[in-house]
Amino acid sequence: MEKHHIELHNEKLQADHQRRFDFIVSEYAHVEEVISKLIKFQLAIPSWAIGTGGTRFGRFSIGGEPRNLEEKIYDIGLLHQLNRASGAISLHIPWDEINNSHAIKALAAHYDLHFDAMNSNTFQDQQGQVYSYKFGSLQHVNKAVRQQAIEHNIEVIHQGKALGSESLTIWLADGSCFPGQLNFRRAFQNTLESLQEIYAALPDNWKMFIEYKAFEPNFYSATVGDWGQSLLYANKLGAKAYTLVDLGHHLPNANIEQIVSLLLMEDKLGGFHFNDSRYGDDDLTAGCMKPYQLFLIFNELVEGMDAKGTDHATGLGWMIDASHNVKDPLEDLLQSVEAIMLAYTQALMVDRHALTIAQQENDVVRCQEILQHAFRTDVRAIVQEARLRKGGAAQPLALYREQQIRKKLINQRGSKTVAIGL
Amino acid sequence: MEKHHIELHNEKLQADHQRRFDFIVSEYAHVEEVISKLIKFQLAIPSWAIGTGGTRFGRFSIGGEPRNLEEKIYDIGLLHQLNRASGAISLHIPWDEINNSHAIKALAAHYDLHFDAMNSNTFQDQQGQVYSYKFGSLQHVNKAVRQQAIEHNIEVIHQGKALGSESLTIWLADGSCFPGQLNFRRAFQNTLESLQEIYAALPDNWKMFIEYKAFEPNFYSATVGDWGQSLLYANKLGAKAYTLVDLGHHLPNANIEQIVSLLLMEDKLGGFHFNDSRYGDDDLTAGCMKPYQLFLIFNELVEGMDAKGTDHATGLGWMIDASHNVKDPLEDLLQSVEAIMLAYTQALMVDRHALTIAQQENDVVRCQEILQHAFRTDVRAIVQEARLRKGGAAQPLALYREQQIRKKLINQRGSKTVAIGL
Amino acid sequence: MEKHHIELHNEKLQADHQRRFDFIVSEYAHVEEVISKLIKFQLAIPSWAIGTGGTRFGRFSIGGEPRNLEEKIYDIGLLHQLNRASGAISLHIPWDEINNSHAIKALAAHYDLHFDAMNSNTFQDQQGQVYSYKFGSLQHVNKAVRQQAIEHNIEVIHQGKALGSESLTIWLADGSCFPGQLNFRRAFQNTLESLQEIYAALPDNWKMFIEYKAFEPNFYSATVGDWGQSLLYANKLGAKAYTLVDLGHHLPNANIEQIVSLLLMEDKLGGFHFNDSRYGDDDLTAGCMKPYQLFLIFNELVEGMDAKGTDHATGLGWMIDASHNVKDPLEDLLQSVEAIMLAYTQALMVDRHALTIAQQENDVVRCQEILQHAFRTDVRAIVQEARLRKGGAAQPLALYREQQIRKKLINQRGSKTVAIGL
Amino acid sequence: MEKHHIELHNEKLQADHQRRFDFIVSEYAHVEEVISKLIKFQLAIPSWAIGTGGTRFGRFSIGGEPRNLEEKIYDIGLLHQLNRASGAISLHIPWDEINNSHAIKALAAHYDLHFDAMNSNTFQDQQGQVYSYKFGSLQHVNKAVRQQAIEHNIEVIHQGKALGSESLTIWLADGSCFPGQLNFRRAFQNTLESLQEIYAALPDNWKMFIEYKAFEPNFYSATVGDWGQSLLYANKLGAKAYTLVDLGHHLPNANIEQIVSLLLMEDKLGGFHFNDSRYGDDDLTAGCMKPYQLFLIFNELVEGMDAKGTDHATGLGWMIDASHNVKDPLEDLLQSVEAIMLAYTQALMVDRHALTIAQQENDVVRCQEILQHAFRTDVRAIVQEARLRKGGAAQPLALYREQQIRKKLINQRGSKTVAIGL
Repeated sequence: MEKHHIELHNEKLQADHQRRFDFIVSEYAHVEEVISKLIKFQLAIPSWAIGTGGTRFGRFSIGGEPRNLEEKIYDIGLLHQLNRASGAISLHIPWDEINNSHAIKALAAHYDLHFDAMNSNTFQDQQGQVYSYKFGSLQHVNKAVRQQAIEHNIEVIHQGKALGSESLTIWLADGSCFPGQLNFRRAFQNTLESLQEIYAALPDNWKMFIEYKAFEPNFYSATVGDWGQSLLYANKLGAKAYTLVDLGHHLPNANIEQIVSLLLMEDKLGGFHFNDSRYGDDDLTAGCMKPYQLFLIFNELVEGMDAKGTDHATGLGWMIDASHNVKDPLEDLLQSVEAIMLAYTQALMVDRHALTIAQQENDVVRCQEILQHAFRTDVRAIVQEARLRKGGAAQPLALYREQQIRKKLINQRGSKTVAIGL
Repeated sequence: MEKHHIELHNEKLQADHQRRFDFIVSEYAHVEEVISKLIKFQLAIPSWAIGTGGTRFGRFSIGGEPRNLEEKIYDIGLLHQLNRASGAISLHIPWDEINNSHAIKALAAHYDLHFDAMNSNTFQDQQGQVYSYKFGSLQHVNKAVRQQAIEHNIEVIHQGKALGSESLTIWLADGSCFPGQLNFRRAFQNTLESLQEIYAALPDNWKMFIEYKAFEPNFYSATVGDWGQSLLYANKLGAKAYTLVDLGHHLPNANIEQIVSLLLMEDKLGGFHFNDSRYGDDDLTAGCMKPYQLFLIFNELVEGMDAKGTDHATGLGWMIDASHNVKDPLEDLLQSVEAIMLAYTQALMVDRHALTIAQQENDVVRCQEILQHAFRTDVRAIVQEARLRKGGAAQPLALYREQQIRKKLINQRGSKTVAIGL
Repeated sequence: MEKHHIELHNEKLQADHQRRFDFIVSEYAHVEEVISKLIKFQLAIPSWAIGTGGTRFGRFSIGGEPRNLEEKIYDIGLLHQLNRASGAISLHIPWDEINNSHAIKALAAHYDLHFDAMNSNTFQDQQGQVYSYKFGSLQHVNKAVRQQAIEHNIEVIHQGKALGSESLTIWLADGSCFPGQLNFRRAFQNTLESLQEIYAALPDNWKMFIEYKAFEPNFYSATVGDWGQSLLYANKLGAKAYTLVDLGHHLPNANIEQIVSLLLMEDKLGGFHFNDSRYGDDDLTAGCMKPYQLFLIFNELVEGMDAKGTDHATGLGWMIDASHNVKDPLEDLLQSVEAIMLAYTQALMVDRHALTIAQQENDVVRCQEILQHAFRTDVRAIVQEARLRKGGAAQPLALYREQQIRKKLINQRGSKTVAIGL
Repeated sequence: MEKHHIELHNEKLQADHQRRFDFIVSEYAHVEEVISKLIKFQLAIPSWAIGTGGTRFGRFSIGGEPRNLEEKIYDIGLLHQLNRASGAISLHIPWDEINNSHAIKALAAHYDLHFDAMNSNTFQDQQGQVYSYKFGSLQHVNKAVRQQAIEHNIEVIHQGKALGSESLTIWLADGSCFPGQLNFRRAFQNTLESLQEIYAALPDNWKMFIEYKAFEPNFYSATVGDWGQSLLYANKLGAKAYTLVDLGHHLPNANIEQIVSLLLMEDKLGGFHFNDSRYGDDDLTAGCMKPYQLFLIFNELVEGMDAKGTDHATGLGWMIDASHNVKDPLEDLLQSVEAIMLAYTQALMVDRHALTIAQQENDVVRCQEILQHAFRTDVRAIVQEARLRKGGAAQPLALYREQQIRKKLINQRGSKTVAIGL
């Protein structure tokens, strides 16, 4: 998108914005402090989220989807241009084919993007693969299969190094579908041993993120099934290993914010996958279902990171991980980023001093009032102001539609394209 | 509370309020329309919610709790004086002993309260009761037990008539704890037959609300376990029988707003019990856990009632049903009423015309934007303005605390009082 | 498989079987009565269950899967030859291409199979389809889309008539992924209207089964989401419309056996999809996760059908609906059929007279003892005896392996075949 | 009960038993090995389980309940006399008042009972207690409250030492009901610090069991909420601290058997509370709802303990923890013990060698067959034989009824007694 489109759009909306921003400034004393944090905050976009997602029952392509890594970078660059908060890309190997690291790195730099966590894939069989992952990968009873999966992860690290990435996210589909299928203990130990080999290949400045998930695609047990298991692995591996929390990977009613708080306490929270869900790993737009939960999670993140003196922007790996089945993926991502920025802003605005006192006095009513005051405050003008100062669009989604970007992408790329990946 | 306390309090907060109210008026065109609806909207307070609640593990009294029906009316009157939105009381027989209907009715009128739905109790055994409800009441295999429960319900109707109530809420704990314990079909038919006898005693201008609940205190089956069962009973009973929805009475992840919509479609939604929950029937403050869900429910209520031309204020029985285990019950109720009024206000502000168009176009992104726009708007000044116009306090909770009301109640009533009920 | 393979296999196992069968006969008086019911009981196998299933994360083919309808019939014929309890096939249009109804019908007859419920598909877009089902089919806001889906269903009825089927199962993925996306009421009414048009095309001797499902592939609402909704549709449609229960389509902890009982009470239970699950619609082998639940469901089926005098074998549509992701599909189906037969047998053995008395006396301990006595009894010899008398194999799974059938299928069909369907 | 009653009862049933036992011996080679393990296996009965339990909605006493510790010991002694598998009692302080340790110990010895884990109570306020536990105990923001709770626990250790107990079970209701109420990290650290003080007072030969629970009586967060948190505490405390698993204390669908396996792997599984549940901590009879799950748990216990060479009988604390709301508590306990013994027996009968091979070959079908073969086997005669050899009754529940024990207890103790406790 050309810069003047953004400028024009912003001008048109400026007066209304100013009125709203002035109002919130009159209401809340520390707006500038919040804005300075928002300016630094960036979310990584996974390369696979740019295409239409699907379920086992089908997939309904929207058209104009990227046909290769270059086009994915272009799309994420566009998002970043609009909201100035999507300045990173998270690759997935082998869904992303990197023919020329140099060129890819330069292209990303052109769009002001850097490479966040690399993602390996040992949950699908690829063409020409020697061993199948049907019965797991790092957990597999057969050492040769484990070795193949280990080597794939090490290869991903190599590719990531060339791009300037500094972390590896390992999500394992490993587990079992039926009682008796696995010896849980041996599966754990095989997995640990495999992770240790990958860990040994990890550069010193890298982090390993161990993602957990309660179920799916295995429907009886998962070998990294909850935060407790992930933490066990991370502790046994060493200082570079961390737990990664994906909001959709829990059993019903789990208190994710408490998990976040405890992992921060243990210095073992490494990263985040944002999305929303109601039933399982529904991979919906962040904040579309339980926005208060998203706020409560950020409330813990802010509190816990501040307590440790950790920089919000760089202390954790922040990433969106969603599947866009019925929305335009780019619009969906704009909505997700907006919802996350709003939740972060509200969390920053919590009167932490007052909250600590209320907690100390067991004044439960007051504790709730303090949190809900922040949540009920309309902070959209603050997020918009931060975005404007970064050079983004006043209303990214509105501008995206005004510019008919999806139509242009379909014209360029065709209506039958399928993004590589799920 | 004396009137001038409220006036003083309001004056002090007036300038701030005016600024916020002016701002929202500048943002949203139909504020006056919304306010006119808020002014008419009243929530019934159940008499048992005025005392400290508990769990099977214990109960921690706050003190100053009402010792009789007169004191309960006093407390609800106080709430209503503060927020002008709690103008009804819902009695529970036999927890509430009505010695003189005339006097009680006059006392309530003094506080500008009327009597909403009457609640019967066949889930506990009372002193001197001939038959036990250990194995159910209206479902019981023994006709004599059912008869006793039927007569109790009829007696409750009589007491309600004397007070001007016009509805009976029947919540049954009936069900089973173990597979095999019940013949589900016979339990259903016994219950239906019992309800028919109660229905026959219902005055023409009364409604019968059939509340459903998935589980607890029975842990295998519930004889009115979901909206489908409740609707079956209501349809078999007749035009005066309706389903009552309690937010905490569902299986995990149930879509309550859809249930509400369908019951309205069938002309069979009768009433509402507000509370919030995470795990089961947790009976927490409305909107404390999932405020977006509360908004979505009101969104369906407003849409569905408007489609039928039903008056919001009188079309349904609106009641809070919560248990106040760790908060001052009066403060908790003030928080609940506030959360409900906010959700109702946001639902009223949804751009329904635009939403219908977006739905018609399958513009899912826009549908979400429309709902979230309303939800993200800070509507507290609107609710406050409506309250002020009704003569209530600007900040009911703040004034309650300034006036040290709990302390006064403890002084008057003692610190060891236990409200009659749970 | 040649007949003598079965005979040889049976002979080898006869002595052991006889000892076990004699023992159970010595324990339980009504074995012959049970066997006579088992002999008549048949389960329909869905044509899509013969191939390897998958999740949205991948699919690991086992090889040797059927490449067309003829091969599917062959495979189901083989299952039926082995267990003599899989004497029906349930087709799915358009996954099954029927070029010549006559020939297909004759082929099925050759394997002693008849055609159970036909399944329509309006949850995927097919090559060349004019309108997309991305936003639903029978619920769609656009009448033209609904009309296309209606016509597809009518076409499926036509195809079914030619094959001798007498029922149509409609499972709709219709629903929404995001709050606001749908007007629930209009979605219901569109769906009802569409169903009415299909119903009008239903032959007099046909049944329409309306399957409900709580979620997936839609993750916010489902337009036929629970038994209450399905029953509403069925009642509005008429006498030929029934509810179909799929065990995996419920919210967590739902009491399915109670639903079954109430639907039987209302004369509206039409059919069953057997499978097992832990988290969602996991589509696992029947009885692999919660065999006691399977027994309890059969307990209600037997009780409820006997109360109405309904024939067990013909009164309901009995079908397996599972996805075979990590097992050989044919082995998985053999396990499912066995588990279902065992549960049915145990349900038949419940001392119903004693249970009624215990229920009447609220003797909860005795009720449980009666059910658990039946469940704890080892009834495998009874099921085996029934199978032997029908000409089946003593141990179908063992014989399937001895005969190395999968290997033969791979040799014939290749290892890279993909069954048409999911 | 007099010994000859048991003898007479057993004689009457002997012929039938022998036939069944002979049959199972003819089916399974290692019956004697199994029996030798069953003979050593004992379950502790909690003193509070002897009385009728209740919910927050009410309690329906059965009458004849024990009025003091002596009568509780008598009742448990009776159970043990009947089934010879309930040879331990688990006390709860202050519900159990121990006036004379010496006498109590002698009384227990008279009934062949020893004292299993002691249970402290810091979830209720007791008469005369200085500080309230309304806002937690070991987690409390106020050090004085924590100190009071610490001292109570130390007092419980002292009382336990006098009786010969060797373990302390700490179940904390600590947590929060509302977002914001607690600082999760500080609550954890306060709890840890408190546990450290108690741990310091623990005799060298004692174990500390840290029980976790997902929710109830707190409905937002629990400070020892899952196995991961419990393990964190246990690891930070030291070698005498262990996790205790209560089957009802998990989120929906949790894979408890995997948790058990991993805790055994980490040498941190300390004890077990048996019960069954469907919705929450329903505290129902063991095996009444999900008997296959109970078997799968025992399958992991046997496998894991055997792998470490741990003695089954003494390696873990085995206890029932249930609430008997609608059944005679003694009958309920007899049913629970029976269900547990059956599950243990079936787990012992699993062909572990074959299972290991099948797992090694990813033969998922065979893995399931092996487990289900054990589960489908009727092992009641084996459990009965073991009980007979220990001098117990052939059919404990039947004999309990024949002897009309409840009637006798009501005659002795009255019908309005309320056991001290919940």
